[in-house]
Amino acid sequence: MAKKPFRVGMIGYGFMGRAHTNAYKQVGQFFPSEHQVVLKAACARNEAEIKKFADQWGYESTETDWRKLVERKDIDAVDICVPNNLHAEIALAAAANGKAILCEKPLAMNAAEGRKMVEAVERAKVPNIVWYNYRRIPAVSLAKKLIDEGRLGKVFHYRAKFLQDWTIKSDLPQGGQGLWRLDIAAAGAGVSGDLLAHCIDTAVWMNGGMDSLCAMTETFVKERMHNLTGKVEKVGIDDACTFFGKFANGSLANFESTRYARGHKALYTLEINGENMSLFWDLHDLHRLQVFDYKDDGPIRGWKSVHVTDNSPDHPYMANWWVPGLAIGYDSSFTHQVADFLAGLSSGRPAGPTFRDALETQLILDAILDSAKSKQWVNVGKV
Amino acid sequence: MAKKPFRVGMIGYGFMGRAHTNAYKQVGQFFPSEHQVVLKAACARNEAEIKKFADQWGYESTETDWRKLVERKDIDAVDICVPNNLHAEIALAAAANGKAILCEKPLAMNAAEGRKMVEAVERAKVPNIVWYNYRRIPAVSLAKKLIDEGRLGKVFHYRAKFLQDWTIKSDLPQGGQGLWRLDIAAAGAGVSGDLLAHCIDTAVWMNGGMDSLCAMTETFVKERMHNLTGKVEKVGIDDACTFFGKFANGSLANFESTRYARGHKALYTLEINGENMSLFWDLHDLHRLQVFDYKDDGPIRGWKSVHVTDNSPDHPYMANWWVPGLAIGYDSSFTHQVADFLAGLSSGRPAGPTFRDALETQLILDAILDSAKSKQWVNVGKV
Amino acid sequence: MAKKPFRVGMIGYGFMGRAHTNAYKQVGQFFPSEHQVVLKAACARNEAEIKKFADQWGYESTETDWRKLVERKDIDAVDICVPNNLHAEIALAAAANGKAILCEKPLAMNAAEGRKMVEAVERAKVPNIVWYNYRRIPAVSLAKKLIDEGRLGKVFHYRAKFLQDWTIKSDLPQGGQGLWRLDIAAAGAGVSGDLLAHCIDTAVWMNGGMDSLCAMTETFVKERMHNLTGKVEKVGIDDACTFFGKFANGSLANFESTRYARGHKALYTLEINGENMSLFWDLHDLHRLQVFDYKDDGPIRGWKSVHVTDNSPDHPYMANWWVPGLAIGYDSSFTHQVADFLAGLSSGRPAGPTFRDALETQLILDAILDSAKSKQWVNVGKV
Amino acid sequence: MAKKPFRVGMIGYGFMGRAHTNAYKQVGQFFPSEHQVVLKAACARNEAEIKKFADQWGYESTETDWRKLVERKDIDAVDICVPNNLHAEIALAAAANGKAILCEKPLAMNAAEGRKMVEAVERAKVPNIVWYNYRRIPAVSLAKKLIDEGRLGKVFHYRAKFLQDWTIKSDLPQGGQGLWRLDIAAAGAGVSGDLLAHCIDTAVWMNGGMDSLCAMTETFVKERMHNLTGKVEKVGIDDACTFFGKFANGSLANFESTRYARGHKALYTLEINGENMSLFWDLHDLHRLQVFDYKDDGPIRGWKSVHVTDNSPDHPYMANWWVPGLAIGYDSSFTHQVADFLAGLSSGRPAGPTFRDALETQLILDAILDSAKSKQWVNVGKV
Repeated sequence: MAKKPFRVGMIGYGFMGRAHTNAYKQVGQFFPSEHQVVLKAACARNEAEIKKFADQWGYESTETDWRKLVERKDIDAVDICVPNNLHAEIALAAAANGKAILCEKPLAMNAAEGRKMVEAVERAKVPNIVWYNYRRIPAVSLAKKLIDEGRLGKVFHYRAKFLQDWTIKSDLPQGGQGLWRLDIAAAGAGVSGDLLAHCIDTAVWMNGGMDSLCAMTETFVKERMHNLTGKVEKVGIDDACTFFGKFANGSLANFESTRYARGHKALYTLEINGENMSLFWDLHDLHRLQVFDYKDDGPIRGWKSVHVTDNSPDHPYMANWWVPGLAIGYDSSFTHQVADFLAGLSSGRPAGPTFRDALETQLILDAILDSAKSKQWVNVGKV
Repeated sequence: MAKKPFRVGMIGYGFMGRAHTNAYKQVGQFFPSEHQVVLKAACARNEAEIKKFADQWGYESTETDWRKLVERKDIDAVDICVPNNLHAEIALAAAANGKAILCEKPLAMNAAEGRKMVEAVERAKVPNIVWYNYRRIPAVSLAKKLIDEGRLGKVFHYRAKFLQDWTIKSDLPQGGQGLWRLDIAAAGAGVSGDLLAHCIDTAVWMNGGMDSLCAMTETFVKERMHNLTGKVEKVGIDDACTFFGKFANGSLANFESTRYARGHKALYTLEINGENMSLFWDLHDLHRLQVFDYKDDGPIRGWKSVHVTDNSPDHPYMANWWVPGLAIGYDSSFTHQVADFLAGLSSGRPAGPTFRDALETQLILDAILDSAKSKQWVNVGKV
Repeated sequence: MAKKPFRVGMIGYGFMGRAHTNAYKQVGQFFPSEHQVVLKAACARNEAEIKKFADQWGYESTETDWRKLVERKDIDAVDICVPNNLHAEIALAAAANGKAILCEKPLAMNAAEGRKMVEAVERAKVPNIVWYNYRRIPAVSLAKKLIDEGRLGKVFHYRAKFLQDWTIKSDLPQGGQGLWRLDIAAAGAGVSGDLLAHCIDTAVWMNGGMDSLCAMTETFVKERMHNLTGKVEKVGIDDACTFFGKFANGSLANFESTRYARGHKALYTLEINGENMSLFWDLHDLHRLQVFDYKDDGPIRGWKSVHVTDNSPDHPYMANWWVPGLAIGYDSSFTHQVADFLAGLSSGRPAGPTFRDALETQLILDAILDSAKSKQWVNVGKV
Repeated sequence: MAKKPFRVGMIGYGFMGRAHTNAYKQVGQFFPSEHQVVLKAACARNEAEIKKFADQWGYESTETDWRKLVERKDIDAVDICVPNNLHAEIALAAAANGKAILCEKPLAMNAAEGRKMVEAVERAKVPNIVWYNYRRIPAVSLAKKLIDEGRLGKVFHYRAKFLQDWTIKSDLPQGGQGLWRLDIAAAGAGVSGDLLAHCIDTAVWMNGGMDSLCAMTETFVKERMHNLTGKVEKVGIDDACTFFGKFANGSLANFESTRYARGHKALYTLEINGENMSLFWDLHDLHRLQVFDYKDDGPIRGWKSVHVTDNSPDHPYMANWWVPGLAIGYDSSFTHQVADFLAGLSSGRPAGPTFRDALETQLILDAILDSAKSKQWVNVGKV
């Protein structure tokens, strides 16, 4: 039976452009569906670079102006892989042109922008999703499943950290290729929007919304050379951000992120403590879920290190990969996201996080930055 | 050469009474000094119990009134192992009688009380120390040594947690033998004074004082039967407490404690991230220090799991124990504390934490409870 | 510049057929070279199955007779992904037809067969390699690099284990799709040829050849239903195999494999103890290398957990993937093997293990089975 | 009620002399019984040293001739803490004098000697035990309990290792204080008698006797200066020893020990794989037992890290120590052994391992050395 083509226009060609493209190429082999992904066009301002990228990854054509790309009739979906300050404008144009949108996280520069994007895609009725890929690491998906089965009982605590160390050196410039995450104008925020956004998305998905919070941010290196202006300029982003608060279900939040934690490359950890079960996960060992089950027999009760690699329905997504014990990589989470997105197109039950789902994370991020500035507790806005 | 006797009067016979006594008995074998500890008297209101305790542990005599004990001429030192609400009164009386004082932590119910105790021991010029024993777990002592050698460079983060799960069940009473830690009248606070106090003592010792902080507390179980009154009463303690803040050296604090973290028995962890080195320690594997040394050769840079068991000067205290690889237990930290206290008597350089050192922890605890109540940032008072 | 096509004919479509094909598809994106892999044809006796496979994975055509495949002019290389008893016959025919050969491990049913294969490919001067993929897990490649740099000094011990538990249930049949590894006629051996073969290949690569050894094998389940005959038949394979022996460099070997170690899915571990450095690796956490460096400063000497994920030359292959901290999966080892094989074609320095390299493993496997049968020490034959 | 005195005469004052004495001193506080241990006399040839030891540890008197000690009427038990070559002679004399005997491991220089010791204590009907202390690490005792409850089902594998690295340097002398373990005349064997003996004792206790085995030994450093003669002499001990074999219950053994495994201080690990459950323990983290329970729910099946520190009957011995989460040390295993020995005196059910139990280990050690020499499989002799 002939497959339905799903023709992708990719905007951007950086780290995420590569990760998404790898997923588009793998999905048909590992998660066959009624759709066939077609890499129709890749787009970036730098023509030489985008042609090289398209050639290496197999895109059929290139564009240098994203406005042209979103208007092309031969494209079904737009993938937004550019700095945060461009997400809204592109998404609005893509929605207006009836394209499905797969937008890199965070959804927007702030909740106001995000809200416009939600309205745009919902008005246009176009499929939409945000690339909070960590939901689809099998161990994380398994955690969600255990929670949904009610195994935890009343939840008391949810804590998450995302620790890195790559910006400690003060001679690292802000802005420019690969460094736009340090540039407040392009990124909108520092570690909060970059790293905490992931932690918050997973938390809200697993543990529900937040009522209120209190945050602290710090910028350790106050000035950095700006790559675009060539001048030393004040740094506008947060280098570190910690917050605590209360979830709607009564549990307590403790979140922290930083790029100044020497020794940690990308240590995203999460832990949820329920009355009957606790769960812990760590991106550095992403194929394992730590489970403490209070119902286990007393003498042998302990944290179980579950190697989430069984090729069976027991372990989400893994039946489609290899054999027990053989771990898949970080990149597979993107493949799973495409698989679920395409399945959602077929079933009519859209895969999350939709733009609307991602708006909740954006509201929490706004509350964090407000609180850090005012040094007050702040209530989280409603979606 | 004849040893100088060091005649101890112990008040209390619970968990800590046993731990301290074990240390008094071990110290002479493992850390011989010019002093010989003599277990002169044990004291508690319950005569049968204290006689049984004295018999089992080798105390020469008993008392049922601590006022008598602190006045005895044949006693050099008083060890205060009773609930927090009695620390100040006993300490003041002991100081007035010229006794050295070894006081269980936290020093006092609050900073005001603690300040009076500091004044009393300093006026009386009696040796004094507080049993913040975790400083003397060899792995923790090694961490302090590495910090003092300047190996970390500028410090960015200090984080600590103390997670337990033993009060989750709502039918646990508050108050009475073994449960006074749940009784606000006896304990003065919940997890903050009990667990965070340990974390704060170590933190201040390693990373210096704190300027300001913001805290959140929660009491999950609002009412419990009170063992002394037999009635269901409002619970006054904090079941969970989280705070963040700033150290005087510019680094950021993130601290959390709870008795509702299913799966954790006594998980005291601490981590300090410096420019050049990071350190991590975990009470559940107390004999290991995790060290990340940025100066290590790039391809093989990683967290080192240092098994702090070498019987050499490399590893604090361990030259006096067994052979490499053979771990000592939690109880040894008390033995080390007595050894250092006695060495301080001989050298004239008192071992810490003195009452004055411990007052700093008390001021931070006051700030935490103030902040949690007012939902505001609070400046930490000065010693 | 136009790429040189590298047209692959794949024989087989099972677990390994999928793993190799994924690698052929990924290699151009992550490790661009002068070659372009073309999936020319897939071959298997079952026409429906091979057509489905070719369709899903993008092979241009199919064959149902491998003899036809190896004679096709439009094919440059043959990939042998069928049970062990067919390796030799296919390889000899492919060599006679001048095809490059990429053969699944183990090379052959025994050393005699392997020797003929070596002679055939060397006579025909065709590029050849065996899929001992674990050499190219980045952490394992890093271990090899450290050894080659002479960091270990004199080596005393090499030990390896490969533990699984999937054949414990006695009602598992022997033979047939997915179960030919239990069938002595198809597999030639049990865990020795399947699992130990991997351990031995890595060991010989890292630590050099072996002189002599002594082995023990066991078959726990003596009879199983045979899927092809439908009858309960004697089991011919080894369920467990342990051996010790001496490497040519004077170090001692201790190897073990089993499919009856409850709780282990695919626990391939290796450890090498040198005078100055020791290394440990574990397939269950394949992205980490444990390194003990005796030259480290005494007080902080410990096993380092190196997260082999830096996108820099420090960590083999990783510069071509993501950013630090983000692990790649098991499957990437195959992608690396294709990348190295193609680089070898370009450079004229063939990537290993060639058939000749793999013959050494085969000779050790022969010695193991001889020793287990005779219950005597056996000298390892010479390549 | 007055306690029965249990008057100990200690022969030796080294590492083990201290460990045993600490246990004698602690036992009454933590495991009260009807006996009161009295440290009656300590004995060694060096008068100054033994007086210093006795003074530090509280022995009432000293002897310089063990023959005098074993004849003293005021002594109930003799503790043999001297090099292996003296065990038999002292034990025979002590038995002849009707003393209870607590003998350091291994029981004897060989099985012939051991058999005489068994005959002597059984003829004299004196209580006897050998200090294989690792049986009484709570995590190990828990493992034994789980096995005895039948939780493992059919056992397939038992493997153990004891790895150290302290003799790598070739300028370490053999013989003399602290180094007699390198002297064949004093020790009788190298790592086999020293380290494997521990592994074998635990294995036989848990998994039953062995039928046959095959071993390999190696002496890496062939000559060392002898401390007693001052001359460079041939080294007679085994530096490394590996063996495999079969237990009577059909399971397979794989054991290894060495003092040349760089990075390991005292890494005694054991693992037992049963049909339904597997267990793993590691002396470097002695307070944890790793348990894999196949009966656990599939999606969350994994190795549990049991922190064996609950002060409840769930965790052997721990009800007598601290509170959950607080680990005890290596030294506590000796305290437990004394507690059990004294309980055995009271109950009439002697605590093991008795001399007879320990003879089985000795027979296996003999078989190991025979096999290593003959390079043949050897049957294990019968007790």
